[in-house]
Amino acid sequence: MADRPANEAPYRLLDDVAFGDGVHVGPFTNLYGCQVGDGARIGPFVEIQRGASVGERCKISSHTFICEGGVVGDEVFIGHGVTFVNDTRPRATNDDGTLQGSGDWELIPTLVERRASIGSGAVILAGVRVGAGALVGAGAVVTRDVEPGDTVAGVPARVLARAADLRAPHSNG
Amino acid sequence: MADRPANEAPYRLLDDVAFGDGVHVGPFTNLYGCQVGDGARIGPFVEIQRGASVGERCKISSHTFICEGGVVGDEVFIGHGVTFVNDTRPRATNDDGTLQGSGDWELIPTLVERRASIGSGAVILAGVRVGAGALVGAGAVVTRDVEPGDTVAGVPARVLARAADLRAPHSNG
Amino acid sequence: MADRPANEAPYRLLDDVAFGDGVHVGPFTNLYGCQVGDGARIGPFVEIQRGASVGERCKISSHTFICEGGVVGDEVFIGHGVTFVNDTRPRATNDDGTLQGSGDWELIPTLVERRASIGSGAVILAGVRVGAGALVGAGAVVTRDVEPGDTVAGVPARVLARAADLRAPHSNG
Repeated sequence: MADRPANEAPYRLLDDVAFGDGVHVGPFTNLYGCQVGDGARIGPFVEIQRGASVGERCKISSHTFICEGGVVGDEVFIGHGVTFVNDTRPRATNDDGTLQGSGDWELIPTLVERRASIGSGAVILAGVRVGAGALVGAGAVVTRDVEPGDTVAGVPARVLARAADLRAPHSNG
Repeated sequence: MADRPANEAPYRLLDDVAFGDGVHVGPFTNLYGCQVGDGARIGPFVEIQRGASVGERCKISSHTFICEGGVVGDEVFIGHGVTFVNDTRPRATNDDGTLQGSGDWELIPTLVERRASIGSGAVILAGVRVGAGALVGAGAVVTRDVEPGDTVAGVPARVLARAADLRAPHSNG
Repeated sequence: MADRPANEAPYRLLDDVAFGDGVHVGPFTNLYGCQVGDGARIGPFVEIQRGASVGERCKISSHTFICEGGVVGDEVFIGHGVTFVNDTRPRATNDDGTLQGSGDWELIPTLVERRASIGSGAVILAGVRVGAGALVGAGAVVTRDVEPGDTVAGVPARVLARAADLRAPHSNG
């Protein structure tokens, strides 16, 4: 691991990030307390929060937000303007009107497995697991788990194609 | 009121903003001509335009855009990548091909009332009022008013749960 | 053409951009290898990639991403947080696990014609043509061509009003 990306770029804030070898991080980025694996590429206007992790040889495209609890496996493609969510009932304040702090709400992890692809503009809700090799269409709002290899799209995201169907021989009796 | 946030952060543009006490503003932010109430927290990559206002103890998350005419009440949670809209027929130019200026279109205010929560990736259309304590699901496109306490989601946003139903005793005869 | 915008602003990265006369570019912008026509206005947190072009007197609003292959005609309005897409099966890596480079995937151009308007939060998929004067609703995911003058909205975007209907006399039998 290294404490710097392999490239230089202006307007970056990199604080307490564990970088793998050969990581490329664009300008206008805000990364803190996270891990980024070997060979990953992070685009401009991206924020990755404390406790999130990005695997090896991932592409994280511009304007994307990966929250605390976001776990992105190796060789994952994340499009532009993708947003991860880690709570189900977000509130600014507690019942007594004080600002919520880290102990006032439950963090729910979100997982994107190896070689999955998340289309631009998608939103991945708290607690969702996107299976290996799955494809999430652009603009989808993913509210439940996506099986490995499946293709989903829409709001809420529904299955367009199942990996099982692609692999299985058809007998259209 | 103060003319500076309570914290320091790099890469901020703060021009003619009226800050309450104890406001926290992240890096990579562009705030101008707006008001931000006591104790509010503004995340990175946020723009808040002239004439917009944010109430006390709000959380405005990263990548969110609050336009002129946007009024956010106290203790409101705004997720990541939320976009406010203030016109219904946006055009770049007038019929004669000249760029539209501020007098060439009608600004329609949008209101998010006290203790409401707007999920990440939501779009709030011009003229909409989101009632107190309402919850807008992630990725929703809110095209009409949301009643206080209701939960809405989808494109266009539809009611998932009514505050009235939650409060009323049921008699399932 | 000029090699600089007409205005000054902090936190801009402008590399190898062909600017027309009187172009205004906001702060926190990342433009490279693209063309921007006379009188266009580019908002904050916008990225425009190599090979993209923006016409004369366009407004490109904050947080928008225009990818390589994006062609925006004259007098087009692009709202906030709009994302263009230029591939249909995005992947981070090739089958052998190496990062994809520019020769490893097919770039599919996207075209927004003269005087069209794209609402905030919309996603424009690869290969789509949005016809002249068309209106794309906020939050729409545009998966197929939009005819000139039509209004579309939703996920996927569907026609709400046809230009032909607006122009044709009605005979309600």
